[in-house]
Amino acid sequence: MTLILNNDDIESVLTMPDCLDVLEDAYRELAHGRGVSRTRSDSFSPTRRPDALYSLKSMDGIVPKLGVGAVRINSDIITWPVLAGTERRVKVPSAPGARYVGLVLLFSIENGEPLAIFPDGVLQRMRVGAANGLGVKYLARKNAHVVGLLGSGWQAGAQVMAVCAVRPIEVVHCYSPNAANREAFAREWGAKLNIKMVAVDTPEAALADADVALCATNSIDNIFFARWLRPGLHVSSIKRPEIEVAALKRADVLVLHNRDASPVHSFTKGATIPEKAKNKGWMLAEGIGFDRLPTLPQLIAGEVEGRTRDEQITCFLNNIGLGYQFAACGALLYRKAKERGLGHDLPTDWFTQTVHP
Amino acid sequence: MTLILNNDDIESVLTMPDCLDVLEDAYRELAHGRGVSRTRSDSFSPTRRPDALYSLKSMDGIVPKLGVGAVRINSDIITWPVLAGTERRVKVPSAPGARYVGLVLLFSIENGEPLAIFPDGVLQRMRVGAANGLGVKYLARKNAHVVGLLGSGWQAGAQVMAVCAVRPIEVVHCYSPNAANREAFAREWGAKLNIKMVAVDTPEAALADADVALCATNSIDNIFFARWLRPGLHVSSIKRPEIEVAALKRADVLVLHNRDASPVHSFTKGATIPEKAKNKGWMLAEGIGFDRLPTLPQLIAGEVEGRTRDEQITCFLNNIGLGYQFAACGALLYRKAKERGLGHDLPTDWFTQTVHP
Repeated sequence: MTLILNNDDIESVLTMPDCLDVLEDAYRELAHGRGVSRTRSDSFSPTRRPDALYSLKSMDGIVPKLGVGAVRINSDIITWPVLAGTERRVKVPSAPGARYVGLVLLFSIENGEPLAIFPDGVLQRMRVGAANGLGVKYLARKNAHVVGLLGSGWQAGAQVMAVCAVRPIEVVHCYSPNAANREAFAREWGAKLNIKMVAVDTPEAALADADVALCATNSIDNIFFARWLRPGLHVSSIKRPEIEVAALKRADVLVLHNRDASPVHSFTKGATIPEKAKNKGWMLAEGIGFDRLPTLPQLIAGEVEGRTRDEQITCFLNNIGLGYQFAACGALLYRKAKERGLGHDLPTDWFTQTVHP
Repeated sequence: MTLILNNDDIESVLTMPDCLDVLEDAYRELAHGRGVSRTRSDSFSPTRRPDALYSLKSMDGIVPKLGVGAVRINSDIITWPVLAGTERRVKVPSAPGARYVGLVLLFSIENGEPLAIFPDGVLQRMRVGAANGLGVKYLARKNAHVVGLLGSGWQAGAQVMAVCAVRPIEVVHCYSPNAANREAFAREWGAKLNIKMVAVDTPEAALADADVALCATNSIDNIFFARWLRPGLHVSSIKRPEIEVAALKRADVLVLHNRDASPVHSFTKGATIPEKAKNKGWMLAEGIGFDRLPTLPQLIAGEVEGRTRDEQITCFLNNIGLGYQFAACGALLYRKAKERGLGHDLPTDWFTQTVHP
């Protein structure tokens, strides 16, 4: 049978500590050449809505140790509005019922069969959270206990879950431009994680005492600046442009998630994404040697050094996601969902064939 | 609702003339920059079977005029045996019930929703047939009526369907190494297409009077040689290595399917595909300027010249497939399947989400 899971199923079984564990091992496998990651591709065309583009995104990965491969697909209507003075990349939920479209297909590498199909939303933020959490684990000071959080959206929740799973965090100061949003976020996540979480009204206030600065926005402009750096700080980002280049340059240790420089972009003629988004999103310009930076898999495998002294400034840049993460977390999810009997079973024959493809 | 179709549904609605029409227009759109094609990627890892590799293949495309994007995925166990003296690439049907795993996911570019999910097998050979059929339409002599066919497998059927749809074919001489196979093929397809089809026992006999030579094998060694060329012949191939390089060089007009030089290959350490398969499969070596060859979309759009004189030798090389073909034929399939009420409807909510991905 091929298992169809929904986000409630996924949320009920996928814990952050488990995701951290499975990804930590999967990254080590990848560093040792025992995993496969196919660079994300983004294809764009016009869509009905004139201020938007249609985007078909895909990424693949195989984790042989876990016996699975995965393809993650997103079929999105995307706009690039300016909100609170910064340019953002905003997906518009346009499918029937005002829903988003993101899917993961999980396959067995032993016999090729489709094991499961499920939406990507919950897993996607868990794997982003876990990747940045591993950045904190390997780079932040051991005694880090104060977090400054920039952002109060969907991704921010997973970021605080992850940091709390790898360091003895006592307090999180949270800033985002909308006061109601940041206050609701602080209430919700303070209660969920049983920690002190305080909404503050400037980014400076959020970062004042921070050991770890977590950037968790959908901004394609800078939102963290070099002037905020202090000795001993670990800065973590989920999107390339969040951190000012001057700040990246001042980091003593700067680690990328992985070395894919950008998605493979394909366009119809004229359907280019805003130039700013394109450049700020992916270019590591201005003298930072992208190709020479260490990656999270290398850091975890011990191939490169992390923090060696408390006063160093460290930085983790989650520059681009991998289908490989969906394979690793997907294997964990599949095993747990099967144990608990979750989801709809569909006949595997619906997704296989006698015809030679 | 998201429509789940099977190969019987697909075979019952998809005709070769319709596929030729939809692809001809889609290629013209692509030539004009009004389509998107993301190069195929093949990721390889070890699998349980020691003489095989696991392969996770994907390709994407968008046809704005038809309102759809598609992702085609193959999850295969692949071996490279030597059969009848030539090295082949053979997929082993390993999923439960000894089945193959190939899927197409079709999405709306207007709202992103998943319109349909279906196996790729029937559609895959229809689009290969139609692509080579368009090669015949634009390159073979108008009065071509004798076909020499090399191959008697699954792909060969679509090749004869396509050539008969675009030229007034009277007779097909069919050769493949196994006598029983070629005789069964000639009986089946002669009856299906109501033409004279004769199994012959050498490739030379198949090609003796041919106006069109159709190569339709899974060989990764040469099976068509320069010594068989004659003025006026059109040679058609579904796989890069079928035609000897010396023959490609002698063609007066040589047209590629498209300019993707090879799939994007990714491997675990050590899991390389046989060197021979890798080179013969994709390299256009020995002085043929791959980058300068015209493509089928350009030919259809009138950007490059096809055959101008009866005595010219023309050649069409279906060097690599495109997700774009699955989008175009998938749009046609979806429309026809909906009209006829075919397939299983699943709730679209199963494949969409409220969570921001």
